[in-house]
Amino acid sequence: MEGSGSGIYENHPYVPRDLKLPGFVPGFLSQSTILGVYGLSSLLVVLLTWLFSGRSPKKSKIDRWLMCWWAFTGLTHMILEGYFAFSPEFYKDKTACYLAEVCKGYSKGDSRYAARDAGVVAVEGLTAVLEGPACLLAVYAIAKGKSYSYILQFAISLGQLYGTAVYFITSYLEGDNFAASSFYYYAYYVAANASWVVIPTLISVRCWKKICAAVQVQGHKKNKTR
Amino acid sequence: MEGSGSGIYENHPYVPRDLKLPGFVPGFLSQSTILGVYGLSSLLVVLLTWLFSGRSPKKSKIDRWLMCWWAFTGLTHMILEGYFAFSPEFYKDKTACYLAEVCKGYSKGDSRYAARDAGVVAVEGLTAVLEGPACLLAVYAIAKGKSYSYILQFAISLGQLYGTAVYFITSYLEGDNFAASSFYYYAYYVAANASWVVIPTLISVRCWKKICAAVQVQGHKKNKTR
Repeated sequence: MEGSGSGIYENHPYVPRDLKLPGFVPGFLSQSTILGVYGLSSLLVVLLTWLFSGRSPKKSKIDRWLMCWWAFTGLTHMILEGYFAFSPEFYKDKTACYLAEVCKGYSKGDSRYAARDAGVVAVEGLTAVLEGPACLLAVYAIAKGKSYSYILQFAISLGQLYGTAVYFITSYLEGDNFAASSFYYYAYYVAANASWVVIPTLISVRCWKKICAAVQVQGHKKNKTR
Repeated sequence: MEGSGSGIYENHPYVPRDLKLPGFVPGFLSQSTILGVYGLSSLLVVLLTWLFSGRSPKKSKIDRWLMCWWAFTGLTHMILEGYFAFSPEFYKDKTACYLAEVCKGYSKGDSRYAARDAGVVAVEGLTAVLEGPACLLAVYAIAKGKSYSYILQFAISLGQLYGTAVYFITSYLEGDNFAASSFYYYAYYVAANASWVVIPTLISVRCWKKICAAVQVQGHKKNKTR
């Protein structure tokens, strides 16, 4: 192998420093550009969903916010995480492709992305392929007041929580030394993932309560008609 | 390191053959003893749960079978998988401890157990610590007709499905070469795990339908009282 054994492969900003990434091409876009595009696109998605959800006057504010969340997280799963899961060589990208730049950037918080850690790829693949489309279905289910709305939101939230748990636990088991600096550790690895712990937890609890209440009402009704 | 680089570490029955397991001690119990003890204990658990569930005359047969499944799978998660998750050195066990023998045996179907693959340990840890006790709670919830019975069963089944998916996908991504022979591949890796795909799928579908029906009934009731 060309250059194997020399320091040639360490020409990347990731930790651990001995990670081998033959053919690595540094990112072209600045951190603020990458985050700015993601932030503005997300804001646009949330705004459009909020306006769209307002067309149906019966929707409560919490339902409208939930539709915004599902649209935002669904598109993040399908586009960002979908690109990552099926692009094993993103770190060689020379075209300044935005999605490759996101992956190159995020790998500073967790180099397992560039290293194609099997646990990370498995979780991201499941998230992109199953949870992504399910999130968009949740937007539709809330909009139309479908009876499967709560159980669907509960299922996706639980999947997000399970995936995030596997993500953090595997990192811990593998030594928790994958961030390029404390800044990237806390900003990318911890803070960026925290939303996918806090929000799915809140939604799961809400759906659990709503479903228990519905089952209880049905139980009372059955007892009355006996 | 003593003996490193020589063939000394390959004194184990697992594949890949170059897997390093310093201090490995071969199993003491035969395959039929290990499987026989597991089979008989499981049968005993199922029988006791069946008898116990029969004391409440209102329970349907399907609820009684579900209680048996939750008791069996819960104890498997807590005892077998719990031992594995927190015993990183089981392959060095010299005491013929039954649980270590199970892990040594199962590693013939998937050597990642002996190798402490982070994905496998993370999934088994979550299964043992969260899902195991939740399964026993499900037995209680069905017995007492609790309103959270369906959503709890749905949550555990989804966790089992997610865990099994991560388990199979990580193996595929890592080369799917962890079984000592075709027999162990199909009997241990495929067949033994198949129950945790088929049964949780059936339970999830059942709970989904029950919950949707309850939510729908509640929706109609709300509309009527308006």
